[in-house]
Amino acid sequence: MVWPRPEGPLLPKADVVIEGRRFAAVLTEESPQGPFDLVVEGEGRLLLPGLVNAHTHLAMTLFRGLAQDRPLMQWLTEEVWPREKRLTGEVVYWFSLLGLAEMIKGGTTAFADMYFFMEEVAEAVERAGVRALLSYGVIAPTPERMESELRKAEEFAREWEGRAEGRIRVALSPHAPYTCGPEVWKRAVALARELRIPIHTHLAETKEEVERVRAERGRSPVEWLEELGVFGVPVLAAHCVHLSEKDMEILAAHGVHAVHCPTSNLKLACGIAPVVEMLRTGVNVCLGTDGAGSAGDLNMLEEMRLAALLAKVRTGDPQALSAREALGLATWRGAVALGWGKELGTIEEGRRADGILVRLDRVHLFPDYDPVANLVYAGQAADVEALFVDGRFLLRDGQLQTLDEEEILGRCRELAKKFR
Amino acid sequence: MVWPRPEGPLLPKADVVIEGRRFAAVLTEESPQGPFDLVVEGEGRLLLPGLVNAHTHLAMTLFRGLAQDRPLMQWLTEEVWPREKRLTGEVVYWFSLLGLAEMIKGGTTAFADMYFFMEEVAEAVERAGVRALLSYGVIAPTPERMESELRKAEEFAREWEGRAEGRIRVALSPHAPYTCGPEVWKRAVALARELRIPIHTHLAETKEEVERVRAERGRSPVEWLEELGVFGVPVLAAHCVHLSEKDMEILAAHGVHAVHCPTSNLKLACGIAPVVEMLRTGVNVCLGTDGAGSAGDLNMLEEMRLAALLAKVRTGDPQALSAREALGLATWRGAVALGWGKELGTIEEGRRADGILVRLDRVHLFPDYDPVANLVYAGQAADVEALFVDGRFLLRDGQLQTLDEEEILGRCRELAKKFR
Repeated sequence: MVWPRPEGPLLPKADVVIEGRRFAAVLTEESPQGPFDLVVEGEGRLLLPGLVNAHTHLAMTLFRGLAQDRPLMQWLTEEVWPREKRLTGEVVYWFSLLGLAEMIKGGTTAFADMYFFMEEVAEAVERAGVRALLSYGVIAPTPERMESELRKAEEFAREWEGRAEGRIRVALSPHAPYTCGPEVWKRAVALARELRIPIHTHLAETKEEVERVRAERGRSPVEWLEELGVFGVPVLAAHCVHLSEKDMEILAAHGVHAVHCPTSNLKLACGIAPVVEMLRTGVNVCLGTDGAGSAGDLNMLEEMRLAALLAKVRTGDPQALSAREALGLATWRGAVALGWGKELGTIEEGRRADGILVRLDRVHLFPDYDPVANLVYAGQAADVEALFVDGRFLLRDGQLQTLDEEEILGRCRELAKKFR
Repeated sequence: MVWPRPEGPLLPKADVVIEGRRFAAVLTEESPQGPFDLVVEGEGRLLLPGLVNAHTHLAMTLFRGLAQDRPLMQWLTEEVWPREKRLTGEVVYWFSLLGLAEMIKGGTTAFADMYFFMEEVAEAVERAGVRALLSYGVIAPTPERMESELRKAEEFAREWEGRAEGRIRVALSPHAPYTCGPEVWKRAVALARELRIPIHTHLAETKEEVERVRAERGRSPVEWLEELGVFGVPVLAAHCVHLSEKDMEILAAHGVHAVHCPTSNLKLACGIAPVVEMLRTGVNVCLGTDGAGSAGDLNMLEEMRLAALLAKVRTGDPQALSAREALGLATWRGAVALGWGKELGTIEEGRRADGILVRLDRVHLFPDYDPVANLVYAGQAADVEALFVDGRFLLRDGQLQTLDEEEILGRCRELAKKFR
């Protein structure tokens, strides 16, 4: 069994001991002596920290494959929004479980989600056993709407922070600079301060957004949020595709975490985010899939691969964002972004026992000169053999331990009929 | 069982009858009456024409994961070329089988390969049961080298055309405009004419190549090959990343087939090929993985997905290269490019029975509003359940039928030791 330290060398043939919810020991010399409740074979596997999907809308798996290859606004106004009016808590619950089943099978142990019916998303997370930063998405162009939306966001936040044995944390989510006015931002920041929770939003996703905010506010979306004091609290900013150098300096200065969502940004023709430039400026960059409705899936291995590939073509440098660095984006940098940086993201004694085992003895992963490069450039979700969170296995031998795939597919099949 | 016509609607619940090597019937109304030698369950599966990998270097799976994230010339001169001097036919044979195992499990029924020790590649193809267009790669900067290299290429071509019950065809492969002088090209064209076989080459892969050929020949690589008469025979041109409008018109006018290799082009920081522009100009565009040494894997589903995603970001249009069109690049357009356009690439009565079955009842492929969009944007190699060529199953229930994975991995493990 081998595992990589953050962007460091692999640790060959280590034994890892888990006690309760934490890694109790990582030993390379002598094997620890039992008795143990459970011994898991690691030979021919890569042990990694769990992947962190730092931006998604889980229940939008309901819209996977719906009217694809359309312009974003047409897709939203004609296909998604009319259907979202018919959403119920039950639909959100089951399609969240569908997304969770996919994420667990693909190696994701923690994620950040922003949507509606968040109580049901939280219940799905509790049942599945993963870790999540959850927030109710506030879209409030008008003052009346603002009050009711902020109230829902606050109620959810107060109710769910620290639940599921600490696996659930919460955030506040003004949706984006172009869908929320200054009052929403100021109120959200004040509340985030009071509750000591972060803000999770969309930022600088399209050129149109940047142009619109510049026209309305006389500055870039990043500059505008800085001026409003938003970056005085921890911020998880999805996309960050269209940034000036000054924008990047602002993000770095305030410790804003940028969530690169390469599949979604390509599929919606938004652009390629300046990941290497952000990292160089000192911004913490992590990875997200965005919702499966727009991106197609919730596959973090794909996002890792794309991040590494796109950084090279954007900079013209095949050395840009190495496989090891891309793995860092998907693991410890994501853990830091979600506020779990001291607890998660690496496999070390005393840290929370979240991790995955990936099979290496596959024809598409041989030779094994560099297992991490193979994982990033050739790995598939189906290579993930096991996944554990807080020392509890949610996937073993490729089989879900807390969720029933047949049940979920059956319920989702019934519920989807109303949305065709 | 449903299957898509080329870029057309899906055919729901069709029964397909195979007799010998061909599709004997495709029936949507009444089920055909047996007895049959073999009945394959298609419920909940998508039946597709086999995927065509139109440009690879199969045996370079030997170099998968070797010294990744390096500049191309450094990787070649310091890592690959010194090792290639130690290649043997045995190494090429077993690593070709490794690549074939990966390709079959990922849905590829036919491919075009250019490398050395091509007899051993051909023997591997014969054993695996797939279809291939094979050619010996000629690199000849000097006249002396030219004679011996062209002789090897000719011997291979004369020996193997039509072998393996017609599943093997051959081509001639001057490597690229910057590695072969005018005499090589002229001789290769004359020989291709005599043998009635195509030319398979690399073209306009990097900006440096275009600049170099412009400096040396006073025209673009495409213009130069046209002037040499190369396009008077069928040509399979890998990459085509850096093209002028005039270049595209030349390729279209001569019916040159462009092989888009998106992963390789990103990973080596070459650029994003103008796929939509080529198609609009009338060029037949198909897809290839390039070698696993540079691209990481031989996964055609990845190339399809990337082609669809990159076309959108390159053109700024989310409608560019739909999922259905991307599937066309990977199937019938590839069959046309390899010279099998009349026999392969669609599922129709009388055509060769090459195809794949893809599982749809997976959590990451639901809901099924659009199975083809799901396949392209969320499909994984592991979803390919069965594959057949000339009516013979090479993969069933995810298990290889003609190759032994354990044997191949074992032999490759031994042989790889000499190349570390």
